[in-house]
Amino acid sequence: MAERLYLYDTTLRDGQQTQGVQFSVAEKQKIAAALDDLGLDYIEGGWPGANPTDSAFFEEAKPTRATMTAFGMTKRAGRSAENDDVLAGVLNARTPAVCLVGKTHDFHVTAALGIGLEENVENISASVAHCVAQGREALFDAEHFFDGYAANPDYALECLVAARDAGARWIVLCDTNGGTLPDRIAQVIREVIAAGIPGERLGIHTHNDTETAVAGSLAAVEAGARQIQGTLNGLGERCGNANLISLLPTLLLKEPYASAYETGVSADALSRVTQVSRMLDDVLNRVPLKQLPYVGASAFAHKAGLHASAILKDPSTYEHVEPSLVGNQRFIPMSNQAGQSNLRRRLMEAGIEVAPGDPALARILERVKERENEGYAYDTAQASFEILAREELGRAADFFEVKRYRVTVERRKNKYDKMVTLSEAVVVVKVDGEKKLSVSESMDETGSDRGPVNALSKALAKDLGPYQEIIEDMRLVDFKVRITQGGTEAVTRVIIDSADGQGRRWSTVGVSPNIVDASFEALLDAVRWKLARDVGSAAKAAE
Amino acid sequence: MAERLYLYDTTLRDGQQTQGVQFSVAEKQKIAAALDDLGLDYIEGGWPGANPTDSAFFEEAKPTRATMTAFGMTKRAGRSAENDDVLAGVLNARTPAVCLVGKTHDFHVTAALGIGLEENVENISASVAHCVAQGREALFDAEHFFDGYAANPDYALECLVAARDAGARWIVLCDTNGGTLPDRIAQVIREVIAAGIPGERLGIHTHNDTETAVAGSLAAVEAGARQIQGTLNGLGERCGNANLISLLPTLLLKEPYASAYETGVSADALSRVTQVSRMLDDVLNRVPLKQLPYVGASAFAHKAGLHASAILKDPSTYEHVEPSLVGNQRFIPMSNQAGQSNLRRRLMEAGIEVAPGDPALARILERVKERENEGYAYDTAQASFEILAREELGRAADFFEVKRYRVTVERRKNKYDKMVTLSEAVVVVKVDGEKKLSVSESMDETGSDRGPVNALSKALAKDLGPYQEIIEDMRLVDFKVRITQGGTEAVTRVIIDSADGQGRRWSTVGVSPNIVDASFEALLDAVRWKLARDVGSAAKAAE
Repeated sequence: MAERLYLYDTTLRDGQQTQGVQFSVAEKQKIAAALDDLGLDYIEGGWPGANPTDSAFFEEAKPTRATMTAFGMTKRAGRSAENDDVLAGVLNARTPAVCLVGKTHDFHVTAALGIGLEENVENISASVAHCVAQGREALFDAEHFFDGYAANPDYALECLVAARDAGARWIVLCDTNGGTLPDRIAQVIREVIAAGIPGERLGIHTHNDTETAVAGSLAAVEAGARQIQGTLNGLGERCGNANLISLLPTLLLKEPYASAYETGVSADALSRVTQVSRMLDDVLNRVPLKQLPYVGASAFAHKAGLHASAILKDPSTYEHVEPSLVGNQRFIPMSNQAGQSNLRRRLMEAGIEVAPGDPALARILERVKERENEGYAYDTAQASFEILAREELGRAADFFEVKRYRVTVERRKNKYDKMVTLSEAVVVVKVDGEKKLSVSESMDETGSDRGPVNALSKALAKDLGPYQEIIEDMRLVDFKVRITQGGTEAVTRVIIDSADGQGRRWSTVGVSPNIVDASFEALLDAVRWKLARDVGSAAKAAE
Repeated sequence: MAERLYLYDTTLRDGQQTQGVQFSVAEKQKIAAALDDLGLDYIEGGWPGANPTDSAFFEEAKPTRATMTAFGMTKRAGRSAENDDVLAGVLNARTPAVCLVGKTHDFHVTAALGIGLEENVENISASVAHCVAQGREALFDAEHFFDGYAANPDYALECLVAARDAGARWIVLCDTNGGTLPDRIAQVIREVIAAGIPGERLGIHTHNDTETAVAGSLAAVEAGARQIQGTLNGLGERCGNANLISLLPTLLLKEPYASAYETGVSADALSRVTQVSRMLDDVLNRVPLKQLPYVGASAFAHKAGLHASAILKDPSTYEHVEPSLVGNQRFIPMSNQAGQSNLRRRLMEAGIEVAPGDPALARILERVKERENEGYAYDTAQASFEILAREELGRAADFFEVKRYRVTVERRKNKYDKMVTLSEAVVVVKVDGEKKLSVSESMDETGSDRGPVNALSKALAKDLGPYQEIIEDMRLVDFKVRITQGGTEAVTRVIIDSADGQGRRWSTVGVSPNIVDASFEALLDAVRWKLARDVGSAAKAAE
């Protein structure tokens, strides 16, 4: 009989402590929806009252299957739990669960808080009891527990007992500084359980300061803890938290965990874990790390010649799990048979039928490889990939030709002596033999400058003659920029998401050392894709 | 009495299996010198005979304190060790040690090699014996050992015994597919030792496919193995190998390892580990990962307000080791979660003294918060933060004023009928009452367009009158763009890294819906920061 193991995500709270990370409310909502879809048990949404974004997130939070949890701290000394405004702010978020962090290390109580040891125990007890009395599921995050237990085990345990007796559903042992190694974590947890805190109420919260956060979480489970706290992609303060994206596949697919435990994550949800990991990078505008366990683009890449040939005989020779179980793909050098059949499948999905062995397949693979070396990324920009493939297959239609463009960005004083910025774009195209000059500026309806790419986009889509009607319902919905090489030789990659009135959404890519030119290339592909779909290359050929 | 633990680096061999990594001979030499300087025991330089670079590296290898090791594989079936040309190629590198990989998993022997089980044992035995007879220290890498031991423990052990009896100094248990978890590694090693392979002759070679390669290495040592194989920054096939950069500080600084074991790495060498990690990224032209354990720029960064205030009282409250021991630095970033004490500390580090309780502190925090809501990010862009603080403190100097600028990006046919892109920027500044117009274009020395930001940067830094000399040695070294809100209302955040001839490097930020304008703002801050540092606001005020 498998035991239930609970998964608690703190991407939205501890993950936000990552240097350079500051989620907007909309981003938090997007991440929360993905976490809920994965089947995690708890989503820690933030600290209501600590900053406007976290407060707004809880106000606007959608219902979740997961238990939405507000984070806060135990009440301060010298006031009752009822009269602590910080605690009230947390409870006001009206989440079914509340997680309060409190001290358990005597040194921190006296040195950081500057209060008496018994006063701190009293704060834990009263705060947890107050949450429980309000009908909330209470969790207690025992900050610095492992350091505290090493320094003064009796006191550290006294704090846990206070939380337990006040009714905390979970007592989470936090290795706040990330300095405790897995064997020590396991040993301490066994001792804590022996001291009367049941494993079914114990959680583990590790940090990656020694690169062992995942192993520390696994060690805690083996020692008896039944809740793991972690974050997507191991986001978090300093070196990050335990990476749930790595832990989920291990817990679901590998022994002894797969047989011994049951989680809320289904096999179907697990097959979306790669996608969730990349979604977070997308939100953060980070290039996904190729070497990430399970979900990285290199996780199932077989570069060594010996390995690649054995893989062709039997994938289990060099893979510890099947990549599709985590939504990832095997990657073998492009030149071989496997590369071509993958490509055919991808083209078929885009409605482009190609016979097996068509020599264009090898040419497409070759061009994708070349262009990816230059900085293009066709895994995201499916629409640009389709255009490239159509070109190699001789199935692209030239609806129009861009002769030239010019964009100007100017910043100067206006007539009211105020500094203003304005962009203007001129695009010259040839459509059905006719030359058309279009000019647009970057001002939106509120009079604000939206920048040179906006002006270019408008000018390009202003007059395409007979095709104008088809692109009327297109709009630019997202714009991402990445510098693909550091330093002055940087190349800019722009990915543009477009949408239309039929509810379609597609992505295109442009690459250039010149950011405006990279954007223009992506804009152009977006228009070409829409025309290829809606005019149809067959109709065009029949003209 | 501490036991000797041996460290074996395979950055130059297994590290080179990383997707996208291909070292030149000069790069291999540079890395080998750094490894030797660290005090590692073995440097695996590559596979002589397998490719021209590896062969050339061994031919030109400089003498090292570390034992230089050539990698190869056990002889093939059907010929003697003396007559195996691949093995001869390895021995011809004339290294003091030779490491041969061989099969120990019965399935691989029959399925991948297609030979008999006893034939494989014979190959191991004869190959190792041949190396020993040639006066080399022999190492045997037992490929897929953990999978092999699970499938057929007797056979896997028989292979190890063959290597041991043939005189291998080290028998290295390789978790080639990276699927074995730390507890299982420890258990198997205990069984292998019990079966008669002494721990003093056992090594461990793990991969990071479950994010536990470091923990797996530590578990192996606790179970009795005395050699760890790994790579710098965890480079290696798929998800990488065990990261020696994380392992070294743990082994030298943390218990139970620090007291129980002795390595060839001195405390002085350990203080260069951050530098070595960044050197490798430099060779690979990668941006160093901030979250890397011990050596990342965020490893000792304290973002949370509660943490930062405790750090000010005593760094040990939130740090498990002292950052200088690994050559890293503590960092307290500015962010909307920071308090006044954090702020004063940060300003002090920037050479800006402020009395406690100065009302400007509250104003600075308020402005940082406001601007972070608009999309600015001051935890990365410290130089822009300093400029903002100086303004609020009334200690900013207005060296010059920008009156206006204009940038044009144009794409058209040149006289050879080829499409070319060119950017041109005009910047008008007022310096010491004098108006100066500067114009620059984006062409670099090779005739390539580097884009509008490059042109703007050059025009801005072209003529600043009396200050021109001070900014002459400035250069733009990195440029990052992020869209901080999705959709058409997107705001662009640009972060620019600049460097100068004094080896300083600083980051500035600009935010605008217009990407060119955001870039200009960041460029402007970069120049202003340099002037504030080098002209000095005091000198300016004294004028």
